[in-house]
Amino acid sequence: MTASLPFASRLSKVETSAIRELFKLLGKPGIISFAGGFPDAAMFDVDGIREAANAALEQEPGAALQYGATEGYGPLREQIASMMAGKGVRGVQANDLIVTTGSQQALDLIGKTMISPGDKVIVEGPTFLATIQCFRLYGAELISAPVDGEGVQPDALEDLIREHQPKLVYLIPTFGNPTGATLTLERRKRVLALAAKYQTLFVEDDPYGDLYFDAPPPPSMLALSSEVDGSRDWLVHCGSLSKVLSPGLRVGWLVGPKSLMANAVMCKQFSDAHTSTFAQATAAQYLHSGRMPDTLAKVRKVYAERARTMCDALERELGTALSFVRPGGGLFVWGRLTGQGGKVADGNEFAKRAIEQGVAFVPGTPFFAADADKATLRLSFATADLQRIEEGVQKLARAL
Amino acid sequence: MTASLPFASRLSKVETSAIRELFKLLGKPGIISFAGGFPDAAMFDVDGIREAANAALEQEPGAALQYGATEGYGPLREQIASMMAGKGVRGVQANDLIVTTGSQQALDLIGKTMISPGDKVIVEGPTFLATIQCFRLYGAELISAPVDGEGVQPDALEDLIREHQPKLVYLIPTFGNPTGATLTLERRKRVLALAAKYQTLFVEDDPYGDLYFDAPPPPSMLALSSEVDGSRDWLVHCGSLSKVLSPGLRVGWLVGPKSLMANAVMCKQFSDAHTSTFAQATAAQYLHSGRMPDTLAKVRKVYAERARTMCDALERELGTALSFVRPGGGLFVWGRLTGQGGKVADGNEFAKRAIEQGVAFVPGTPFFAADADKATLRLSFATADLQRIEEGVQKLARAL
Repeated sequence: MTASLPFASRLSKVETSAIRELFKLLGKPGIISFAGGFPDAAMFDVDGIREAANAALEQEPGAALQYGATEGYGPLREQIASMMAGKGVRGVQANDLIVTTGSQQALDLIGKTMISPGDKVIVEGPTFLATIQCFRLYGAELISAPVDGEGVQPDALEDLIREHQPKLVYLIPTFGNPTGATLTLERRKRVLALAAKYQTLFVEDDPYGDLYFDAPPPPSMLALSSEVDGSRDWLVHCGSLSKVLSPGLRVGWLVGPKSLMANAVMCKQFSDAHTSTFAQATAAQYLHSGRMPDTLAKVRKVYAERARTMCDALERELGTALSFVRPGGGLFVWGRLTGQGGKVADGNEFAKRAIEQGVAFVPGTPFFAADADKATLRLSFATADLQRIEEGVQKLARAL
Repeated sequence: MTASLPFASRLSKVETSAIRELFKLLGKPGIISFAGGFPDAAMFDVDGIREAANAALEQEPGAALQYGATEGYGPLREQIASMMAGKGVRGVQANDLIVTTGSQQALDLIGKTMISPGDKVIVEGPTFLATIQCFRLYGAELISAPVDGEGVQPDALEDLIREHQPKLVYLIPTFGNPTGATLTLERRKRVLALAAKYQTLFVEDDPYGDLYFDAPPPPSMLALSSEVDGSRDWLVHCGSLSKVLSPGLRVGWLVGPKSLMANAVMCKQFSDAHTSTFAQATAAQYLHSGRMPDTLAKVRKVYAERARTMCDALERELGTALSFVRPGGGLFVWGRLTGQGGKVADGNEFAKRAIEQGVAFVPGTPFFAADADKATLRLSFATADLQRIEEGVQKLARAL
């Protein structure tokens, strides 16, 4: 090529090297992986999904294979609304939500709809990697709010809102990625009150809420918004079937204020016209079949065992060299190297040594939009079985 | 809501009222519709797609239901590359293309990757409605290049490129939407030479190329780019299974210069992670099954009959009041009201009268990015059967 292509200026906002490094870690064969952020394929209800796909093609081949409404396939919107009602969400009907191509697209539509170049956006420090990059592509300047084992700290968050007047605040309040932390009921209500008080849009990203181990988490911020005056007008909620049923269907959804939904539909129309109607009709048939409760029960049980096994092994093998909070659900353990006993205290360095020992995880640095805590790391317990988890943690101990 | 949401500035660039009007036209029940831009659902190979979906879930349930590579599912990329090779495209391997969520997403990724606010983009006047809005959302200033029955006019296009130094030029060279026109072989080569000469990116959007009636159209610009020195470096090609197999799968693809592909993959990662692996694995199995040639032959035959019936009826019933060029493929007849014999000469007015008579079509105005020709209109012959086409054209005559 004689000249290079004149790419859009927005691309300069995105730092992809951290992500490329991460992918390199995942590629090595034979390795025990605690790196992935995905569910275990062995737990997919393949028979149930096959039956659902066949039912969709039998009962409504036209709808399943033709262009569909940008807002989503009616019967699926009904199923999702009813699922949310079952979890305490009041006043959200099928027409109040739109189906997105995974919840990643819900984030993209929020960015496209809301963020002008230079707008400030508050995220948790640390937060979901792809949210950071997605919002930066729309020109957002990200600000990190401090979190602890109970999620984001409301006082600090309020100070940041006052100081920065952000366009929006993005939270993963339940079994967060990467921290695994869950915002307490009391903090949820305080955060909703902040949304109403400062008339600032809050995004609740909730892909993991159904993956609890023992007790259910507090109700979602969307459910609680009925109790906090004026908060519903400033709340957007993103959900997904990816972690509980199948990521490959790419079915997520978005609920929010009416004016935002109208603009998000317009943006989605020119992003991908609509989410695969074949995948949507299959998901609708699956939810209609009544198999979801059993699927969820199975997934919860398996992940709970794996989480317990990993946490027990980490305490036993790594001792005080790694501090972490036991998660109550989700896919992740978030740890912090203490450096005690002269052990390695840098997550990147530890990741390199771990790869040499045959075990992979993601160092914490790329999850921070700013001021990265280099001692942190994320371990997923979702995809390795109990024996591999034990082995992997022993390898971690050797790497340390 | 006590205050309105502070939406992103990019939304102010988009004019949706024309599109809303259009959708209102489509909604009326019982009407004969020449309005839609979609294929006839009655022609979907439901059995073949069902077999393909079952084969995908049988042979590779993990891959079909799990997260996948952002670039697309390997076996589908192989099938698409081989399909393109069969149509004369040289040197495009599976790794040189990415799978997109319909070709609408290919357009969105081109916009996200290339267009900075204020960049100029040349499109055909008229062109695909959703491209206009998609590029405007990224801040493009659109410039209309004149077209005739043989597609875009190369001399006028060269003048516009010199004058505006556009970021890119977007064309639908084969059975274009809305014009149905096909760029001649000679013009294709001239246009490719312009890409190389001015080092300007050209987008070839090609969803209709397989839908020819009698003779195949000239080779795609992508195929011809091997013959025009330097042009491949400045050419992006978008393809789709939507018009030939099923829009509901949302399977399209994008081929372009390596640096553009790398950035498009990065943008796609944060747009929807990847296209539904379930839909991709189903499409791969379908293409592998060998049913596509029969499906294409059937679709071509049916659309050819419908196009002939519509064109014959238009000549017979509307006479000199409507001028049009008989399309050699695709889904559309593009007409221009001549006003002869004191008949209505405004497409919008004619559309209103037609609705009253029970037949819908889309007036031409919204397809123009600038300087709309109000006498134009688009008629789709794809979804009504022969008898309804005859009836519909008689209603048009009454409306006139």
